[in-house]
Amino acid sequence: MTSQNRARFVLAVFALALVFSLSPAPARGEEGMWTLDNLPLKLLKDRYGFAPTQAWLDRVRLASVRFMDGGSGSFISPDGLVLTNHHVAVGQLQKMSAAGRDYVATGFYAKTQAEEIKSPDLEVNVLAGMENVTARVLASVKAGMSEADALKSRQAEIARLEKESQDKTGLRSNVISLYQGGEYWLYRYQKYTDVRLVMAPERQAAYYGGDSDNFTYPRYDLDMAYFRIYENGKPLRPEHWLTWNPKGLSEGDLVFVSGHPGSTDRQFTYAQLENQRDSRYPILLAYIDRTVKTLREYSARGQEQERRALVQIFGYENSRKALTGEFEGLKDPALMAGRKKAEDEFRKKVAGSPAWKNEFGGAWEAIGGAVAKSAESFKKRFWRGQTGSQLAQFAQTIVRYAAEVKKPDADRIPGFHESEVEELRFYLLSPAPIYADLEELLLARALQQALAELGPNDEFVKAALGGATPESAAKKLIGGTKLADPKVREELLKGGEGAVAKSADPLIVLARKIDPTLRADEKWARDNIESVLTSAGEKIGRARFAVYGKAEAPDATFTLRLSFGTAAGYPMNGTLAPYKTTLYGLYDRALGFGDKGEFKLPARFWDRKASLDLATPVNFVCSCDIIGGNSGSPVVNRAGELVGLIFDGNIESLPGRFAYDGTKNRAVAVHCAYMLEGLKKLYDAAPLAAEIEKKK
Amino acid sequence: MTSQNRARFVLAVFALALVFSLSPAPARGEEGMWTLDNLPLKLLKDRYGFAPTQAWLDRVRLASVRFMDGGSGSFISPDGLVLTNHHVAVGQLQKMSAAGRDYVATGFYAKTQAEEIKSPDLEVNVLAGMENVTARVLASVKAGMSEADALKSRQAEIARLEKESQDKTGLRSNVISLYQGGEYWLYRYQKYTDVRLVMAPERQAAYYGGDSDNFTYPRYDLDMAYFRIYENGKPLRPEHWLTWNPKGLSEGDLVFVSGHPGSTDRQFTYAQLENQRDSRYPILLAYIDRTVKTLREYSARGQEQERRALVQIFGYENSRKALTGEFEGLKDPALMAGRKKAEDEFRKKVAGSPAWKNEFGGAWEAIGGAVAKSAESFKKRFWRGQTGSQLAQFAQTIVRYAAEVKKPDADRIPGFHESEVEELRFYLLSPAPIYADLEELLLARALQQALAELGPNDEFVKAALGGATPESAAKKLIGGTKLADPKVREELLKGGEGAVAKSADPLIVLARKIDPTLRADEKWARDNIESVLTSAGEKIGRARFAVYGKAEAPDATFTLRLSFGTAAGYPMNGTLAPYKTTLYGLYDRALGFGDKGEFKLPARFWDRKASLDLATPVNFVCSCDIIGGNSGSPVVNRAGELVGLIFDGNIESLPGRFAYDGTKNRAVAVHCAYMLEGLKKLYDAAPLAAEIEKKK
Repeated sequence: MTSQNRARFVLAVFALALVFSLSPAPARGEEGMWTLDNLPLKLLKDRYGFAPTQAWLDRVRLASVRFMDGGSGSFISPDGLVLTNHHVAVGQLQKMSAAGRDYVATGFYAKTQAEEIKSPDLEVNVLAGMENVTARVLASVKAGMSEADALKSRQAEIARLEKESQDKTGLRSNVISLYQGGEYWLYRYQKYTDVRLVMAPERQAAYYGGDSDNFTYPRYDLDMAYFRIYENGKPLRPEHWLTWNPKGLSEGDLVFVSGHPGSTDRQFTYAQLENQRDSRYPILLAYIDRTVKTLREYSARGQEQERRALVQIFGYENSRKALTGEFEGLKDPALMAGRKKAEDEFRKKVAGSPAWKNEFGGAWEAIGGAVAKSAESFKKRFWRGQTGSQLAQFAQTIVRYAAEVKKPDADRIPGFHESEVEELRFYLLSPAPIYADLEELLLARALQQALAELGPNDEFVKAALGGATPESAAKKLIGGTKLADPKVREELLKGGEGAVAKSADPLIVLARKIDPTLRADEKWARDNIESVLTSAGEKIGRARFAVYGKAEAPDATFTLRLSFGTAAGYPMNGTLAPYKTTLYGLYDRALGFGDKGEFKLPARFWDRKASLDLATPVNFVCSCDIIGGNSGSPVVNRAGELVGLIFDGNIESLPGRFAYDGTKNRAVAVHCAYMLEGLKKLYDAAPLAAEIEKKK
Repeated sequence: MTSQNRARFVLAVFALALVFSLSPAPARGEEGMWTLDNLPLKLLKDRYGFAPTQAWLDRVRLASVRFMDGGSGSFISPDGLVLTNHHVAVGQLQKMSAAGRDYVATGFYAKTQAEEIKSPDLEVNVLAGMENVTARVLASVKAGMSEADALKSRQAEIARLEKESQDKTGLRSNVISLYQGGEYWLYRYQKYTDVRLVMAPERQAAYYGGDSDNFTYPRYDLDMAYFRIYENGKPLRPEHWLTWNPKGLSEGDLVFVSGHPGSTDRQFTYAQLENQRDSRYPILLAYIDRTVKTLREYSARGQEQERRALVQIFGYENSRKALTGEFEGLKDPALMAGRKKAEDEFRKKVAGSPAWKNEFGGAWEAIGGAVAKSAESFKKRFWRGQTGSQLAQFAQTIVRYAAEVKKPDADRIPGFHESEVEELRFYLLSPAPIYADLEELLLARALQQALAELGPNDEFVKAALGGATPESAAKKLIGGTKLADPKVREELLKGGEGAVAKSADPLIVLARKIDPTLRADEKWARDNIESVLTSAGEKIGRARFAVYGKAEAPDATFTLRLSFGTAAGYPMNGTLAPYKTTLYGLYDRALGFGDKGEFKLPARFWDRKASLDLATPVNFVCSCDIIGGNSGSPVVNRAGELVGLIFDGNIESLPGRFAYDGTKNRAVAVHCAYMLEGLKKLYDAAPLAAEIEKKK
């Protein structure tokens, strides 16, 4: 399964959160999340006098890591120390916590390696190599095939490529589609699953300002977390890591962001954009609003419930704010007109050449037809897909797993190819805690919503409720299931189709009942929508190369990209935002809100204020083009030193999913100086600071 | 002349700057700049449990002052000490300065009363009383009069009322039109012209953040200045003054603003709004842009030129930012739709009653017709009116003065009635310095623009240029005039029509030449536009009373109003703005911009940082409804104590000129604690602080 699809599948509950929860943000003058095979070296040289050496590029690439939880990071010591954002780590922090031991609330610091805590289900990747496999993927489609067959054929070939590579190299191998299918690449990753928590501040310092300040700037967040990667029980000795420049950077400095932007839609056709605006975003936002309401209701029941629900609430609120900003972009007449104009020009150029017209013509119309068809049933398919519950999601995946793995690889549905099985099992067998009361409430509400949106006669609703109310159905399902125990899940996987068919676990029974409906929906979407978008997208991708060359970067795919830009403020709400903030500003913001709620400072900030240098830079902005998934990316200078840690995009950058506005899109980063000042003076973590500051 | 017209006339160069230069900003839930005869006492009682006593109201009114420069202020000691904004005082500060003695740049503090400096041309007013004169004004219009005659008749009656009152009471007397002419009131003022500067900080502290931060928040400005009013050479002993509450206020506190909002257009008809959007704003903004460019070019010539042009640049940039924000409001479909809907409902109600329809029907159509007619010639009339030069403006006023004052009062053009003459002479004879090189450049550019916009065959252009280029015409005119000397102006006023007719001063010669054209334009506008707007506006005003009663406050008229609201933050650019800022934030903002340019802190802020309490509140926002002209208004609490000093509105409040949005319109004020901290620790002005803090 390609990595950009994975999050959508395995973590369905979090799918939205994941896709959008990672701080997005584009840049200024410097649009582009560049793949390493196609860096704009001439522009870098001409505009900045900078020509990265191969050693520079290799170091930055091999020091960059991907968090499969949905973020980025970097090696920062020869002993496998990895830096990322607190908000990338927070899911693991919550899974490590329990009633009375809340690392999210208190923070954590392992004074010795022995005290480091292993993450229950965290996978970290390093990009080992890339190979262009466009020819093989395209060759799998034969003339005369229906589009549905062509899609199957492409997917089978991709699965084959991934499996071959995996068997040959032992590396995680994913084929990704770039430029809407204009190119296919095989990316190979070193993969690490023994990832131990070293240090995280309390969330109130990391996520200072909460949902209010999220996606905004000026900002004052210590959004950092430290993990150590182990291999064979010992700290990994990575070939490359980034040394820190504790002074950070100056205004106007050229900087680079090396990370894993999740997805952008800048190469969508205009019809696809309209479809997002008119069909998808309103439904997604309605779903998120209701889910946040449910989670907040649960959270209000008590302190322990608050702890349990906090990370999910964060995820959905984060998605809501990101989607709302993106939706604003879609509703902005200027943005849409710009996209329309660009598309019209592109299409006119294609139409102007008989050869191009013959080869690529009709692609836009095909996509227009497909999205119109998709819009008709999107609402039905969307609400059928929401179970709200992690356990129900496990059940569904187990039922499918049993059915799929016995098929020849080429016949399996996406997500269950041989190359994807290991990853799938890793998540299905996660020992992370699951809270039954929360599961029950979420499942009940999801069923309620499906009932309200689809009516009692919908096939899915009938199967899921079986005549009961959503509340009593959920109570029975969650009350009766044993799937919270990873051993039970493991037994079912081992037992295969037979065990699944015989299981009386109510969630498995339900999954068996609803699976045919969901499979039929998915097959319809693959055959009628995805197949058309894929083949027409490929045409447009190739047309783009024919007309414009490879002057643009492809849309983001949660694979390694390099962006560049400068440390620079921007025009904001009638005035200017500065390129950096300082500790002075943190105290100003706290006092301005009466040191309360989202703006309350942890006690240590008051107790130790006198020891801090208040002129210490806290956060800064740079014009590097990023989006969700880039969270945790290192910001490096010309010397390849780490000067900051990406953690967000400004609110002005949210429409950047669809179109880039160089004047005000900014990436927001934690300044190195604040991380070191914090470790030393606020968190008594001088040894960790020393490990970071050690030069070799 | 009514006070709201005055600024437009006498200070034509600054007219735009004045009308808009004063910090605007509406409020939340509490729309309304209330006249003292119609306070919403029931709402205050119901919502806040507050019932002001007559003594409270009298004290607040009599402690409030109006700066005829275009701002507000308050008495803050029994010895006539007055508090206002630095940006209200800055025009006088500049006029008191000279090469090598720049109080704008350095600030000023008079340690003794003997050191206080008299303002060259500042008039300050205190509202002594108000009288409803609607019946008399309306009675002056007889059935069957043409609208042009009706307007003349109204204006003559107003001049008569003013003159009678002035003669009887010795007080400045102005008739104002409220509710678009639904009511006319005679306001009487104590008038003071011996106003001496006591203290002002350097502008870099007062106007910290410059044009960038202007009209925005969070903010960090020490925008204060202190004057002392003298009468007969001795400090005035005012009947009332405000004591300070140095603690200031808490979030959510009920507060009041007592001041002089300049003008709003919330009762404009929809046709008038469209006219503003489509005809007036684009031309005004183009004019301002070009003028700023000219002034900046002059300013770049050297340090002394920079000093000379600074206040004008501020005025125009301030206007540009305000107008741009207002223009955004006019272009906002939601704002316009709201205004349209309200008007449609109002008109439907009027149309639904035969009596109302008979009395008020047709008023909206009449205004629609008048603004359409006005739009046709607005461009011509606008560009003919811009001389750019103070001296040219003096010349024009002198030429008219000589012609008008010999006519019977009822026949004079507006601005020259008997009741207006004293004020007119005060400004015409101002000893404030005038800089010939700047005058020449501004005049040349104004003539250039008139030529470019109107063409060489325009009557005005022909008369003004007489065949020369704008540059050589301006050089000759400014090079040859003696009007910079107030004595020369006085001689001409004394000499009357004969002296003016004989004068060979090139600017007087020019004024004589162009006056017929300008007079004809103005007469056309009075007869065809203003007369219709006045009579139809009166009808709509009365219709509003008939339909809705007096539940709304009238549009602002640069007369005393009371607003109220609470100290409260607001949603801002994706996050929340806090209700207050602190000194911590000032240092943060300085460092964020590298302590440079508009964000450079005066040296004393660094030198004395250790002595400051950085938690001191600096600025705060409250939801009181204000607009330009309110600058310098006191913010008072329930006890009638001064807790802050209004100096701006947030950027979100700018469309408040046309429609009020309670969620985010905020008034921005300097906190009392910062003013005292500054006087004591930054400006060595402890005696002034002691005078303020003395309880009786």
